[in-house]
Amino acid sequence: MSRNFADRLTAAIEQNNSRVVVGLDPQYDKLPEPLRQRAESQQLPQSVRELWAINEFCTQIIEATGEFACAFKPQIAFFERYGGHGLLLLERLLRAHRDQLWIMDCKRSDIGSTSEAYAAAYFSTGGSAPLEVDAVTHNPYLGHDSIAPYLPFLEADKGMFLLVKTSNPSSGDFQDLLVGDLPLAEHVAQKVDKWGEECLGARGYSSLGMVVGATYPETAQVLRRIAPRCYILVPGLETQGGQLSDAGCFTNEDGGGAVFNFSRAVIYAYQSPGSTFGPEQYASAAREAAAKYREALNTALKT
Amino acid sequence: MSRNFADRLTAAIEQNNSRVVVGLDPQYDKLPEPLRQRAESQQLPQSVRELWAINEFCTQIIEATGEFACAFKPQIAFFERYGGHGLLLLERLLRAHRDQLWIMDCKRSDIGSTSEAYAAAYFSTGGSAPLEVDAVTHNPYLGHDSIAPYLPFLEADKGMFLLVKTSNPSSGDFQDLLVGDLPLAEHVAQKVDKWGEECLGARGYSSLGMVVGATYPETAQVLRRIAPRCYILVPGLETQGGQLSDAGCFTNEDGGGAVFNFSRAVIYAYQSPGSTFGPEQYASAAREAAAKYREALNTALKT
Repeated sequence: MSRNFADRLTAAIEQNNSRVVVGLDPQYDKLPEPLRQRAESQQLPQSVRELWAINEFCTQIIEATGEFACAFKPQIAFFERYGGHGLLLLERLLRAHRDQLWIMDCKRSDIGSTSEAYAAAYFSTGGSAPLEVDAVTHNPYLGHDSIAPYLPFLEADKGMFLLVKTSNPSSGDFQDLLVGDLPLAEHVAQKVDKWGEECLGARGYSSLGMVVGATYPETAQVLRRIAPRCYILVPGLETQGGQLSDAGCFTNEDGGGAVFNFSRAVIYAYQSPGSTFGPEQYASAAREAAAKYREALNTALKT
Repeated sequence: MSRNFADRLTAAIEQNNSRVVVGLDPQYDKLPEPLRQRAESQQLPQSVRELWAINEFCTQIIEATGEFACAFKPQIAFFERYGGHGLLLLERLLRAHRDQLWIMDCKRSDIGSTSEAYAAAYFSTGGSAPLEVDAVTHNPYLGHDSIAPYLPFLEADKGMFLLVKTSNPSSGDFQDLLVGDLPLAEHVAQKVDKWGEECLGARGYSSLGMVVGATYPETAQVLRRIAPRCYILVPGLETQGGQLSDAGCFTNEDGGGAVFNFSRAVIYAYQSPGSTFGPEQYASAAREAAAKYREALNTALKT
């Protein structure tokens, strides 16, 4: 089997018949009440109680949803907020679930030896990086210098998703500014397509992908055509207002080339309106939600 | 004394008569040979040996250069590469030197609750954030949404420097693209000036500053005029090719409004050509270099 990241992602999609990425955004205040009560009853400092609950929560979510997902996407900020102890917990979660595909949502951006240091945090050739994952998200504002230190890893077995058009309301502040006749985001997409030429997999996709928010499906159609060989990681469906029925704006004609992230809509599914699950059954609720979104995407993208 | 960050930075500049920011970029392979030998002689795992040496090195550098600097700027990537243990060490260094002004070079970028989580990692109202610092660097690509969660902290006592024009050769890939008649970086500077209006200090400067690389002095003159109330954090002098004689391009006419970062040129000064210090005297070499750059900047900016 090819070690190329894009090929590995395609294989994961096919194996679980799923384009669903489960986003791990653990916020203590949103965890199920019974879990928080168990945490609070322990004779531990508050930050350790919270990390204990987050570890339990994430472990249950990963085990419940793994077979319905093609990858997991931890948002590192929710661990970094606890400083070193938060990252130690994230390290543990990654090590305990090495069988899954992991996309670290870190949106780093730097250059030279600093970019090399970030790459060393997340990528290694022998699996020895402390926060070893399969791919990272990355902010393109600093240009090619910021990506260059990662390219040897992308040519081997790692992946990267560059922010092109983000899902938030003010993403247009800079990403929509017209450069010549085209918005900045389209120029970024052109570069992503070009920079990824050296890390194409056997299935025709590149290990340098892009992030395009579900909230901008018309923009997505344009970006899709500019960079047909790029995998698109799509945040913003459901909770942020993106529509499942627009999923086809992000894929190629054969329904390939895009994966869709669900964070709150899956991991806090027990809280969703009309849920039949109680807070003790949060993992079952997440499992059902992941299965539901897998099916909804497959239906929307049936060609 | 005002708690506003811009006022606190101005006070630090005046107190030490210095516009020098000392950048802490600890790379184990570049540490002085005798220090690495002491580390390697210990019965510890390699990553712990390296962290032991980095802790010793940074502590000596901070103590040797503190009186010649207005602030310290740790590059978090060099700690993050060691995962959770690296951040625990950085937490310790910050706690041990709370008397200094700290600018975390983390270049984060995210939105909503994720941006709030980053803010909680670095900023608190009571000094309780695990990686509590006085200011952070930030990447503006996601627009105002990514900054909004930080603004209440900036209106109190914290600061932020947005990347506008970075020092690296390929910074022009996107930052120089013409939007209308003006490069993207100038549009970003206009926004920084506007977004910082709510956090002006008593001395007329805003706690929302910008990063402009020393390698682009002509661009800096334009950006300086666009955002006269912003502090500019200037990386790239010396090691990256920026010239001390261009320092005036980054300041206002009175010589105020800019601070200049020196990382390798100070912390690894014992390795510089013509250095009279041996590797055991790395702290003295750093001290002399910080004093030298303080004087050189003050001379260049004498009005």
